[in-house]
Amino acid sequence: MKFGGTSMAGTERIRRVANIVRAQAARGDEVAVVVSAMAGETDRLVTFCREANPLYDPAEYDVVVASGEQVTSGLLALTLQAMGCKARSWLGWQVPIQTDDTHASARIENIDAPALIAAMQGGQIAVIPGFQGVSPHGRVTTLGRGGSDTSAVAVAAALKADRCDIYTDVDGVYTTDPRIVAKARKLRHVTYEEMLELASVGSKVLQTRSVSLAMKEKVRVQVLSSFVDEDAPGADSLPGTMIVSDEEVEGLDMERQLITGIAADKNEAKITLTRVADRPGAVASIFGPLAAASINVDMIIQNIAKDKGETDVTFTVPKADLLRTQALLEQRKEAIGYFRLISDDKVAKISVVGVGMRSHAGVAATMFKALADRGINVQAISTSEIKISVLIDEDETELAVRVLHSSYGLDAADAA
Amino acid sequence: MKFGGTSMAGTERIRRVANIVRAQAARGDEVAVVVSAMAGETDRLVTFCREANPLYDPAEYDVVVASGEQVTSGLLALTLQAMGCKARSWLGWQVPIQTDDTHASARIENIDAPALIAAMQGGQIAVIPGFQGVSPHGRVTTLGRGGSDTSAVAVAAALKADRCDIYTDVDGVYTTDPRIVAKARKLRHVTYEEMLELASVGSKVLQTRSVSLAMKEKVRVQVLSSFVDEDAPGADSLPGTMIVSDEEVEGLDMERQLITGIAADKNEAKITLTRVADRPGAVASIFGPLAAASINVDMIIQNIAKDKGETDVTFTVPKADLLRTQALLEQRKEAIGYFRLISDDKVAKISVVGVGMRSHAGVAATMFKALADRGINVQAISTSEIKISVLIDEDETELAVRVLHSSYGLDAADAA
Repeated sequence: MKFGGTSMAGTERIRRVANIVRAQAARGDEVAVVVSAMAGETDRLVTFCREANPLYDPAEYDVVVASGEQVTSGLLALTLQAMGCKARSWLGWQVPIQTDDTHASARIENIDAPALIAAMQGGQIAVIPGFQGVSPHGRVTTLGRGGSDTSAVAVAAALKADRCDIYTDVDGVYTTDPRIVAKARKLRHVTYEEMLELASVGSKVLQTRSVSLAMKEKVRVQVLSSFVDEDAPGADSLPGTMIVSDEEVEGLDMERQLITGIAADKNEAKITLTRVADRPGAVASIFGPLAAASINVDMIIQNIAKDKGETDVTFTVPKADLLRTQALLEQRKEAIGYFRLISDDKVAKISVVGVGMRSHAGVAATMFKALADRGINVQAISTSEIKISVLIDEDETELAVRVLHSSYGLDAADAA
Repeated sequence: MKFGGTSMAGTERIRRVANIVRAQAARGDEVAVVVSAMAGETDRLVTFCREANPLYDPAEYDVVVASGEQVTSGLLALTLQAMGCKARSWLGWQVPIQTDDTHASARIENIDAPALIAAMQGGQIAVIPGFQGVSPHGRVTTLGRGGSDTSAVAVAAALKADRCDIYTDVDGVYTTDPRIVAKARKLRHVTYEEMLELASVGSKVLQTRSVSLAMKEKVRVQVLSSFVDEDAPGADSLPGTMIVSDEEVEGLDMERQLITGIAADKNEAKITLTRVADRPGAVASIFGPLAAASINVDMIIQNIAKDKGETDVTFTVPKADLLRTQALLEQRKEAIGYFRLISDDKVAKISVVGVGMRSHAGVAATMFKALADRGINVQAISTSEIKISVLIDEDETELAVRVLHSSYGLDAADAA
């Protein structure tokens, strides 16, 4: 079981979490719990580090920021004990959760925890701080922001857990954002790959890295809410969303939808370079420097070369990197050889995602027709095996999501 | 070097501390620094523990509260690095500071730190969180409140340090409280035993336990202020107070004062039981139950038995334990056999302390005469080899301290 920072923010919320954990243990399950720091605490600690040293040593940064999860793991163990449960905390170096020594964004390399497993078999609930591990040199490491989801999946894999339940402030994964489409449905199941596509295009339920790890380690992950009142009638029959393999989901869902979900992402900006020389190496001269600056280019469209041997190149970058990208490209204007740089940060990327589209033609055609029928102009397109994304005007985001949600038959029945 | 919570409270103050540490290292010294948590942080964490579980498991309490020093040790290392110093933090389990497993009030058993020593010899400043260690079972322990002074002395002993400099919010140990006596003088030297007596009677400069350890391990401790502006002219010639052995202080101070200091303590309350049966076991029936309840009885006076075979017994307990003491004694009124219980919490204990009194008669006579001359009534007396304490009316505290400070010739010269 994993609980995030909002669920751990203060004594009363930790008590709610302890109630959920106790109920699980009372069913006879062996339970390990991975916890985040209290909401806001990691930011507070990061601020201290930046004030101390703007170019901070990540090894010392890790010592400071790992303390947030240390506190909540001790407090949850204390709260469980107050309820009569056997419980103890296991810090990263005690488990041990062995990582590489890439401080501040370490990767988990191994979790070999015979003492922890023995304690769990003896009926003791294990409480483990997320986000932290120990390096080959015996120093504290952290996994990077949001790393607690990854910790939970890694611990679940190491313990060969039946399930990794990730409690968040939403009660599952929906066909699309319920704030945009009232008829959005909670998905009972979603595959790892679908979850990856939905996560990377803006459904920020789980950290992408944790989903990749779950896919690799075949950990069944359930997303559910820690804010559902477990005493409410029928609460037990309100499970979250299970994230599972292709095979499992095919066995479960006889009448699986073609499309699993629709995601909208307003965090990209569009850049067009006009009249780029249509010669070998021109594209490399644009994207090489951006890659070197760790700017993640997403959609790329190169228009067909015009008769003058020139072409327009359009691509998207994260909005946060737009100014940096413009500056870099303007520095290199002569080397690249373009006429004008046009940028637009009023765009949105709309994606339809589903493993079903692998075996079905016509998914893209449905998308383009539905958007065209409502007069929505598509500025760029990118596709993967299980996803089609289009770039549109930001103002049309909600309209596009609603239209597509209906077009693919995802709307919940009125009576549901 | 050890810095307390007030010195570590926030980015700016940590920068001051780092400046002091850097200046020390710049003199060519190998430096280890022991730090407390930011002022207020340990209280915040203790409150969380109490809210989570009023009868908290001390092992989990330790996990939570040890985080405060973890944060400041990382931040000081970062700040030193920002100033161009080589520095790293060493957590209790990394040094390792091995303790017993008495969680929440552990005792240091061993510090064997070859890696830390090698790093220091390589020019790296070691930053060590105070208050924390690791148990034989590999769990986090803490030494009890105020334990950072003890950590500092233990680390100094393990490193065979030339000196353990304890930076506080006062600039040394004075002949008495300068807020009471304007002519109080800062002592250049004081012996371990004198410091113990001064500490236990209210001069709360150092934790008593740390002084005992320094005496046992023969660590030279210097008390000095972290709030002196080190850029001020003559700041370097304003050292603090050195706490050293009898032998060393005798070699240093040719014209040593008979009395080193005067301490006042308003934290005791007086209880008198009247007409206690003067029979064997009567006193045991009073003090046995108090000892069992961990109530620390200090001064005890038993008046000479009157002709009726009855006696009055007077003693002092910490003010904080007065109500508990009264309740215990009233429950046992019949078993003890006394007439009335009279309590008085408006008392003060005044102590004159000095190793010099060992070899000089007349110290007590001077005290009683000086107090009698000013009409100050002595309610109880207790003595040790290097201390005489009297209990007086609380309202007369300041007067008594001033009178005694003059009588023993401790007043600074006017021109000083």
